[in-house]
Amino acid sequence: MGLLKLRCVQFLTNVTKRSALLHYRSLTAASFKYEDLQVTLTDKKQEKPDPNNLLFGHNFSDHMLQVEWTKDDGWGKPVISPLTNLSIHPGAKCLHYAIELFEGMKAYRGVDDKIRMFRPFENMKRMKSTADRAYLPDFDAEELVKCMKKLLQIDREWVPYSTKSSLYLRPTFIGTEPTLGVTKSASALLYVLTGPVGPYYPTGMNPVTLLADPQYVRAWPGGCGNFKMGSNYGPTIKISAEADKKGCQQVLWLYGDDHQLTEVGAMNLFVYWINEQGEKELVTAPLDGLVLPGITRKSLIELAKKWGEFKVTERSYTMAEVTKALNENRLKEMFGAGTACVVSPVEKILYIDNMLNIPTMSEGAPVTMRFLKELTDIHYGRTISDWCEPIE
Amino acid sequence: MGLLKLRCVQFLTNVTKRSALLHYRSLTAASFKYEDLQVTLTDKKQEKPDPNNLLFGHNFSDHMLQVEWTKDDGWGKPVISPLTNLSIHPGAKCLHYAIELFEGMKAYRGVDDKIRMFRPFENMKRMKSTADRAYLPDFDAEELVKCMKKLLQIDREWVPYSTKSSLYLRPTFIGTEPTLGVTKSASALLYVLTGPVGPYYPTGMNPVTLLADPQYVRAWPGGCGNFKMGSNYGPTIKISAEADKKGCQQVLWLYGDDHQLTEVGAMNLFVYWINEQGEKELVTAPLDGLVLPGITRKSLIELAKKWGEFKVTERSYTMAEVTKALNENRLKEMFGAGTACVVSPVEKILYIDNMLNIPTMSEGAPVTMRFLKELTDIHYGRTISDWCEPIE
Repeated sequence: MGLLKLRCVQFLTNVTKRSALLHYRSLTAASFKYEDLQVTLTDKKQEKPDPNNLLFGHNFSDHMLQVEWTKDDGWGKPVISPLTNLSIHPGAKCLHYAIELFEGMKAYRGVDDKIRMFRPFENMKRMKSTADRAYLPDFDAEELVKCMKKLLQIDREWVPYSTKSSLYLRPTFIGTEPTLGVTKSASALLYVLTGPVGPYYPTGMNPVTLLADPQYVRAWPGGCGNFKMGSNYGPTIKISAEADKKGCQQVLWLYGDDHQLTEVGAMNLFVYWINEQGEKELVTAPLDGLVLPGITRKSLIELAKKWGEFKVTERSYTMAEVTKALNENRLKEMFGAGTACVVSPVEKILYIDNMLNIPTMSEGAPVTMRFLKELTDIHYGRTISDWCEPIE
Repeated sequence: MGLLKLRCVQFLTNVTKRSALLHYRSLTAASFKYEDLQVTLTDKKQEKPDPNNLLFGHNFSDHMLQVEWTKDDGWGKPVISPLTNLSIHPGAKCLHYAIELFEGMKAYRGVDDKIRMFRPFENMKRMKSTADRAYLPDFDAEELVKCMKKLLQIDREWVPYSTKSSLYLRPTFIGTEPTLGVTKSASALLYVLTGPVGPYYPTGMNPVTLLADPQYVRAWPGGCGNFKMGSNYGPTIKISAEADKKGCQQVLWLYGDDHQLTEVGAMNLFVYWINEQGEKELVTAPLDGLVLPGITRKSLIELAKKWGEFKVTERSYTMAEVTKALNENRLKEMFGAGTACVVSPVEKILYIDNMLNIPTMSEGAPVTMRFLKELTDIHYGRTISDWCEPIE
């Protein structure tokens, strides 16, 4: 009897807990749900731009996805609607304190006319970790990917009929509470824009010159350089303009007294060289808080490890090592890697008034170009890979 | 003849230059002008909140000021209108890349019923330097102050009838260009909100406990910690929540391996002690890029130098020095200083799991309280000072 009584109590306790949990969920949903999605289609479709003549981020598709969150009511229902301006209180925290974050990802129209997203769950993983750092609410990645797939289905004609272009997706998450305290935002808006983007190099591979000036620092230990928060980008714009004035297309962000190479522009950076031990090696900065955990970065590392043809190393490396390798003719290729360009070869670095010539293109950049080919083969369905998520 | 010809050419060249300059100015005005101000008054005045029961930044006055800028047309006409939501493209750079900055300043209703702004040109100087860092356009400080004075005249009844409260002004400047490149914004909006704010300590001076954890870093050399950019604030919110969980009200931001004291929350920090040479000294971190050049900070330094009763030093100082001074009973007072609170006394610091007791209030914080009294006497017109800018 005693045992039965105990079991009854346990059962009742569990029922009460479950009921409380359900009640809590209905009050402040842990995530919005795809099944609640509401769709309103536009009656004024815009004309689509020429896919061979696209400026990055200048064109937006007909529809967008929005989901509101409030501290009191939790997540609302996701809504797909015609692209429209947002009505934002001028005191909203996103306009004052940079409580804002984003992701960048792409969908491709394959040679088989199927539309595929590239590793969307990797972007979702990063978006959730950035939301935590920005103190914005969590959500279920599966639900957001389902909603984005629906958005892509609705605007499927916006995915360029081209194996040089793609549809860029921009999930964005902003704190909207209209009060001026530097505190957690009690309301927020998650939204997704999409828009066609062209070949990053319309006239073929265009190697870049970098400004490497240790007086400019992008990220630092104890900061948030490894999250895709808006706050990492605003401060870089003036520095990019300084680079431009010196004839450089991108900033090579150095860190520390030993001038470690971290990122280039808003991309991860890779060096392919013969290391001091005489081994072929691909090296990139480690995920120690100073660089963004790029999805392209991760994919290149995984591809290279699968090839097994050279050593792949994530470690800090310095301008002194790069300069020494250059002087000893051991440095073979250097390139940026990111969603926008896939790979971006480096040909020169302006380092404290010295122009270093990087031989990336001198023998046709075989490693860089192999990465580009293998990854774009996957993007456009020439190689079938489980990195791709078909949209229907 | 040769000389005359040369002079004619010079004259014509100068005329051409001047005409080109005038043409340029008319196309892209170097600043908006007060004389172009357009005013639309609200026909629905809101009820004013009880001045004794105000949460910081929760109330906004009836009107706002807005000025648009575009790369092609320069500054538009300033407009005062009823407070309204902004219509912002979801791809606007301010929502993605934190191209945004602000100022915080106050207007006070004096004991003589006159309304005064406190050192507005100091805020303007900082706002212009922040705009330069954010790569947003410059403007004429005089013109913006004139427009703000008009805004204050229109909403003069929103300036609390209280010598404990004030009207907070929030000039804000955002990049609005709706394209996703991480580049200079080709359009921008400068706007000013105002709203009544209460006594920072409604129940009297409430000394704070600080979390000093060297794993969290607010600013670093080569960054932009000395500008009032939105990007300095978003990353601090989660850290403030960590402090709160440990029973601390604010974060004491340390820097470097030697744990230099930089800022507290979003305030400058001051220590008043007997230094190792046996002198009375007020010390605060220098303007070396790691701290915001606070207007209250500057005012306290100027007041203390005028008093001439103790040494005033701007230099880096460390937790080791603070701990030593505490152990030797030399540390007398520690306080934050900023527009919101004027001064905020510190009573405890949780430093790497050790709770340090700071004796600020033990003898009534005579230096801290003297600063508070002298500054609020100026704010409320009990002391007439040229730091104040009457609004009419």
